[in-house]
Amino acid sequence: MIHKFLFLFAFFLLSTSQAQDFCVADLKSAQTPSGYPCKSPKTLTVDDFVFSNLRAGNTSANPFKISLTPAFVDEFPAVNGLRLSAARLDMDVGGVVPMHSHSNTNELLIVLSGHITAGFISSDNTVFVTTLSKGKVMVFPQGLLHFQINAGGGKASAFLSFNSENPGAQILDLALFSNNLDSSFVGKTTLLDIAQIKKLKRIFGGRG
Amino acid sequence: MIHKFLFLFAFFLLSTSQAQDFCVADLKSAQTPSGYPCKSPKTLTVDDFVFSNLRAGNTSANPFKISLTPAFVDEFPAVNGLRLSAARLDMDVGGVVPMHSHSNTNELLIVLSGHITAGFISSDNTVFVTTLSKGKVMVFPQGLLHFQINAGGGKASAFLSFNSENPGAQILDLALFSNNLDSSFVGKTTLLDIAQIKKLKRIFGGRG
Amino acid sequence: MIHKFLFLFAFFLLSTSQAQDFCVADLKSAQTPSGYPCKSPKTLTVDDFVFSNLRAGNTSANPFKISLTPAFVDEFPAVNGLRLSAARLDMDVGGVVPMHSHSNTNELLIVLSGHITAGFISSDNTVFVTTLSKGKVMVFPQGLLHFQINAGGGKASAFLSFNSENPGAQILDLALFSNNLDSSFVGKTTLLDIAQIKKLKRIFGGRG
Amino acid sequence: MIHKFLFLFAFFLLSTSQAQDFCVADLKSAQTPSGYPCKSPKTLTVDDFVFSNLRAGNTSANPFKISLTPAFVDEFPAVNGLRLSAARLDMDVGGVVPMHSHSNTNELLIVLSGHITAGFISSDNTVFVTTLSKGKVMVFPQGLLHFQINAGGGKASAFLSFNSENPGAQILDLALFSNNLDSSFVGKTTLLDIAQIKKLKRIFGGRG
Amino acid sequence: MIHKFLFLFAFFLLSTSQAQDFCVADLKSAQTPSGYPCKSPKTLTVDDFVFSNLRAGNTSANPFKISLTPAFVDEFPAVNGLRLSAARLDMDVGGVVPMHSHSNTNELLIVLSGHITAGFISSDNTVFVTTLSKGKVMVFPQGLLHFQINAGGGKASAFLSFNSENPGAQILDLALFSNNLDSSFVGKTTLLDIAQIKKLKRIFGGRG
Amino acid sequence: MIHKFLFLFAFFLLSTSQAQDFCVADLKSAQTPSGYPCKSPKTLTVDDFVFSNLRAGNTSANPFKISLTPAFVDEFPAVNGLRLSAARLDMDVGGVVPMHSHSNTNELLIVLSGHITAGFISSDNTVFVTTLSKGKVMVFPQGLLHFQINAGGGKASAFLSFNSENPGAQILDLALFSNNLDSSFVGKTTLLDIAQIKKLKRIFGGRG
Repeated sequence: MIHKFLFLFAFFLLSTSQAQDFCVADLKSAQTPSGYPCKSPKTLTVDDFVFSNLRAGNTSANPFKISLTPAFVDEFPAVNGLRLSAARLDMDVGGVVPMHSHSNTNELLIVLSGHITAGFISSDNTVFVTTLSKGKVMVFPQGLLHFQINAGGGKASAFLSFNSENPGAQILDLALFSNNLDSSFVGKTTLLDIAQIKKLKRIFGGRG
Repeated sequence: MIHKFLFLFAFFLLSTSQAQDFCVADLKSAQTPSGYPCKSPKTLTVDDFVFSNLRAGNTSANPFKISLTPAFVDEFPAVNGLRLSAARLDMDVGGVVPMHSHSNTNELLIVLSGHITAGFISSDNTVFVTTLSKGKVMVFPQGLLHFQINAGGGKASAFLSFNSENPGAQILDLALFSNNLDSSFVGKTTLLDIAQIKKLKRIFGGRG
Repeated sequence: MIHKFLFLFAFFLLSTSQAQDFCVADLKSAQTPSGYPCKSPKTLTVDDFVFSNLRAGNTSANPFKISLTPAFVDEFPAVNGLRLSAARLDMDVGGVVPMHSHSNTNELLIVLSGHITAGFISSDNTVFVTTLSKGKVMVFPQGLLHFQINAGGGKASAFLSFNSENPGAQILDLALFSNNLDSSFVGKTTLLDIAQIKKLKRIFGGRG
Repeated sequence: MIHKFLFLFAFFLLSTSQAQDFCVADLKSAQTPSGYPCKSPKTLTVDDFVFSNLRAGNTSANPFKISLTPAFVDEFPAVNGLRLSAARLDMDVGGVVPMHSHSNTNELLIVLSGHITAGFISSDNTVFVTTLSKGKVMVFPQGLLHFQINAGGGKASAFLSFNSENPGAQILDLALFSNNLDSSFVGKTTLLDIAQIKKLKRIFGGRG
Repeated sequence: MIHKFLFLFAFFLLSTSQAQDFCVADLKSAQTPSGYPCKSPKTLTVDDFVFSNLRAGNTSANPFKISLTPAFVDEFPAVNGLRLSAARLDMDVGGVVPMHSHSNTNELLIVLSGHITAGFISSDNTVFVTTLSKGKVMVFPQGLLHFQINAGGGKASAFLSFNSENPGAQILDLALFSNNLDSSFVGKTTLLDIAQIKKLKRIFGGRG
Repeated sequence: MIHKFLFLFAFFLLSTSQAQDFCVADLKSAQTPSGYPCKSPKTLTVDDFVFSNLRAGNTSANPFKISLTPAFVDEFPAVNGLRLSAARLDMDVGGVVPMHSHSNTNELLIVLSGHITAGFISSDNTVFVTTLSKGKVMVFPQGLLHFQINAGGGKASAFLSFNSENPGAQILDLALFSNNLDSSFVGKTTLLDIAQIKKLKRIFGGRG
C-alpha cells in the first residue's frame, strides 16, 4: 500500500523541488539581482540551516569598543532569497556604533543587556532618540542615519534583525574619510573645515 | 522603404531582447530566488508556450482515488518568472485531496464536473467549508490548510490555478508520517497518540 | 483544560487578525495602489470565498460571437490582494476574441472544448500562433497583443487565469475606434487610411 | 544665513513627508493588502518606534509550558509596512511549541538560553531537525511545518524574527481540533481515527 | 590606529559585497527573471556607472522622422536590477512616435524643446491627449497604447524615463504588419479590411 | 450595431475600473505603505497626467547656489503607485548639491548643460567620481552617499529620474546639524570635533 501512496504523490515530489521552499546560496556562483543561485537541495543537511556563532566578539580590539557578529548570507547561506538575517552587537563601557545607514533594509534592535542610547534621523531631519534597557525593541527605518551608544556603566549587548539577507551598511566616517575621496570635494559637499577633514582622514586611513 | 523602417526601429529590436517579455526556463541551470535562468529567445517556438497534457490522470491507482496533473514550471517551462500556473484535479467516487497547504501561492479551484466539498481553515482557526458544483470557483489563501472531498455519487473534476509558477505543496500526512521524523517528536508537538502515529507511519511509509 | 489552552494561544488570536491571511475587498472604499481596503474579517462567511457564476454567457448577442464571464475583484472580492483571478470564455462558431493586451497580468488559457487558434506577438515582433484542442494550455505574457479565433466547426470554450485580481484589458479596436481620439492622430500614428479609420469608428461608436 | 539654508531645502521638507521613511500603523483604520494606513507623522515621538515588553511571559499557565511575547504590528505599530517583526519565546522544562506554520513569513530563531530541539519538514517531506544551544540560529522557511521542544533540564528561551510585520501562524492542532470542522472531514483528509479526532477535539475545545 | 579601525569594520567589508549596492550586468551570461547576473564588483570603475551618448540621433533616416537613443540595460549595464532607465527622443518637423505600449514599465516624458502632442488611451477607452511645451512632464501608465506627434513648426526633443531597466516596447504597426502573421487573422481580430492590411504589410515588410 | 458591440464589451468596462491602469493620488487621504488612495477615475482629465513646471528655479537665493524642482507624488499626484518620478537640478557657478542619500530609490542624472563633477561612495567605501558633460548619464544606487559639484565656468543643469514616486532624501548636514541632536552624540558617533559641530549647527540652524 505504501508504494501506491508514494506513486500517488509522485507528481508533487517531482514538480516541487526544494528550491521553492528555500534557496541555500551557492556562494561560488555570481549573484543576480534576486540573490545567489541555489545549491542543489539534494546536498543539504540540517547544518545548512543553522548558524553556530552568533556570540559576542572582541570589543577591546578597536577604539569604538564594539563588536558586531553578522549572520548574513555570506556567513549563513540559508537566508539567501529569504529577506531575513540577524547579527549580534556587543558594546564595552563607552562603546559606540558610529553613525551609519542601511541602503536596503530596515533594522530591529533588541536589547539583551545593559543600557543603549539609540537614535535615528528622519528625512525631514527630526531626531528620534531614547535610551533602551533590556527587553526594549527599537526599529530603524531603511536608509536613515542612526547610531547606538552604550549609556550604562557596564557592557551592553543586543540582537539585530534585518529584512534583507544581505544588509548593506554605509558608515559615515568610513565613507567620507577612509578612501581617496578628494578633501576639497568633502569640504564643498559637507562644509566641514579642511583641517577637520584631514584629521579624520588620518584616523580612518584615507588619502586625498 | 522597408529597409528604412526596419532601420528606424532597429534600436527597439536591439534593446528589447525577448527575455523581458518572458523567460522560458532553462531547466538544466541552477535556480535563483527569482526562478530559472532563461533559455535563449532565439531558440523558442510556439510549442514552448503550449502545455499539451492538462487531462485527467489515473484515479484508480491509489487509495485516495484522485489524480492531479500539474502544469508547473518543471512541466511547462514557459511560466518561469510569470507567477502563474495551473493543474487539473480528477476525483473518483469517494476521492479525497488530503489536508495540505501551499507555502508560496494562493489557489483558485474551478469545478468542471461533479460536486466537491472544499474547505480551508484560517489562522484564527475559523473553518470555511462548502459544497461546490459545476461553475463554482473557490479561493484558498496562501499557507492555510485546506482539503477537497468528492461529495457526489459520480466523478468530479476541477481546474486549479496558482499565482506561482512553482507551487509548493505540503501534504500533512506525508509531512508527519512518510519520513524519519521521530515519533516522540510527532507526539509531543501534535498530542497524537503514539499508536496512532505508528499506524499512520506504516500507511505512509515512514520510519522512526 | 480547554480554557487553559485557549488562553495559551490567545496571543496568536489577538496578534494575527484574519486580514493577513486574506483581504476581502470592501468595494465601497477607495482603492489604493495595492488594492481595496479589507472588509472586517468578522463579517465573512464561506460565501465570500466562492464565486458562483463562472458559466457560459450569451454568445449570440454580439457580432464577435463570444462571451466572457469574469471572476475579477469587482465580481469576486475575495481575490483582492491575492494576485489571482479567472474568467470563462465561450465562442460560437466563427467567434473571435479581438486583438488585445493586458497591462498588468500574464494569462493562461485552458481549452475546455472545441478548437481555438490562439497567438501572441512578442516585442521583437515574432508571432507565436497555434491551434489548441481540449486540454491544451497556452500562456500569453503580460502586455503583448494576442487573440483567439474559434477554429472548429462547433462551439469552443476555455478557462482563463490571471496573476492579477484586476486584469486590465486594452482591446485594440475599442482603444482606437470607440472614443473621440482624433482620426488624424490615429492616421499619423498607425498609417491606417482615414477612410478605414472612419469606417471602424462607425462600427465601434467612435467620433472625431 | 540660516533662513536662506532652510529656504533652500524647503522643497525637500515639503516633498518628502515622513510617510515614505516609515508608516506607523493607524490601527483604527481598515487594513489594505499592503498594511494599515499611516498615522500622521507630525504626531509621532520616539516612543512610537520603541516596543517595551519583549520579555518572558508566564510559562506555567498552560499545558504546553511555553509563552510567546509578540512584537507584531498590532502590538508595535511602527513595523507597519516594514516587513520585519520579532517575538520572544520562553519554554519551561518540558515545554513544546506545537507543530505549526507561517503562511506569509520566514522565521529566524536565536537561542538565548537552554537547549532547544527544533525541526522543519520541507515540501518533499525531508526532515531537518537538530538540537540548538545558546548562540545558535536556525531558519524556518515560509509555509513549512515546524516545531520546537525544550531539550534541556532547565528553562530555554529564544528570540524569533520574521520578515513580515504581521506573521500569520497556523497551529496544526488548533486548525484541526479547536473548531467545528466536521470530524468525518478530518478523518477523510488525514486518515486519523475518529476516536483520536474526538479525543483531541475534547482537549482543544472543538465540536463537530 | 588605522589598522585597528580597519580591523574593527572588517566584518562590514567582508559581509557586504558591493553586489547588494548594485549589480552591473554581465551581459554575456543568461538572464534570469530578475535580470542579468552581476559582474564582479572588483572589476568596476566609475565608467561602468556612466552612459555617454544620450544625444540626438539621426531623424532624417526614416519616414517617421524621429530617433530614439536608449540607455537601457543592454546599452547601460549599470541599471541592471535597479528598475530605472532613460532614453532621448528627437523628432523632426512632422515627426511621429507611432502608437505603441510598454509591457513592463511606466513612462515619464519630459519635453526638452519644441511642442509635442501626446496621448494615451486607458483600458476603459478614455483618451487623454494634450500638447506639451518645454518643461512639461507627462506620465504614460504601463501597458496602455500611447503616441507622440511633433506639433510645432520646428524640431522637438524629450527625455523619457522608465521604471524598468529593460523596457519592452510593442509598436502596433510592427506587431501587426512586419511579420508573417496571417492577414486573415489580422482581419478577423481587428476588422481591418484585407486591402488595408496588405498595404501596411508592404510598408512594414510583413508577409502572409 | 454600435449598441451590440458596446454590450459585448460591457464586461470589460465594468470589470476594469481605471484604477488598475493608474491610481492618481488623493492627497487628502492618509497614505498606506503602498501610497495614497486613488482619486475616482471619473474625475480625471489629461491635466492630471501632466506636470507643468519642471523648470529652472532660483539658484541665487541660497549659499549652495542650486535649485531643485521636484515632480514627486506631492506635486504630481499621477505618479502615485507608479514607482517613477523626476526633478530638475540647476546649479549656478560654484553650485554644490551637498552630500546626501535616498533611502528608497535609485537615481539617474542626465546632464542638460554645463559640467558636473558627480560621485557616490559604495558600502565598501570605494569612491566612484567623474566629471560629466552634456548628454552623459550617471546612476546613483539607492541608499549611498552622493554629491554633485558644478565643475564648469558657467551654469549647469540636469534632469534627475527616480524609481520611486516619493523619493526620500537625507542631506547629511541637515541630518546632523539642523536639529536638536545632542552635540555630544554627534561627536561620539562621528568623531567630529565639538567646535566643528557647534560651527555647523550655527550655519544650519541646529540646537543642542
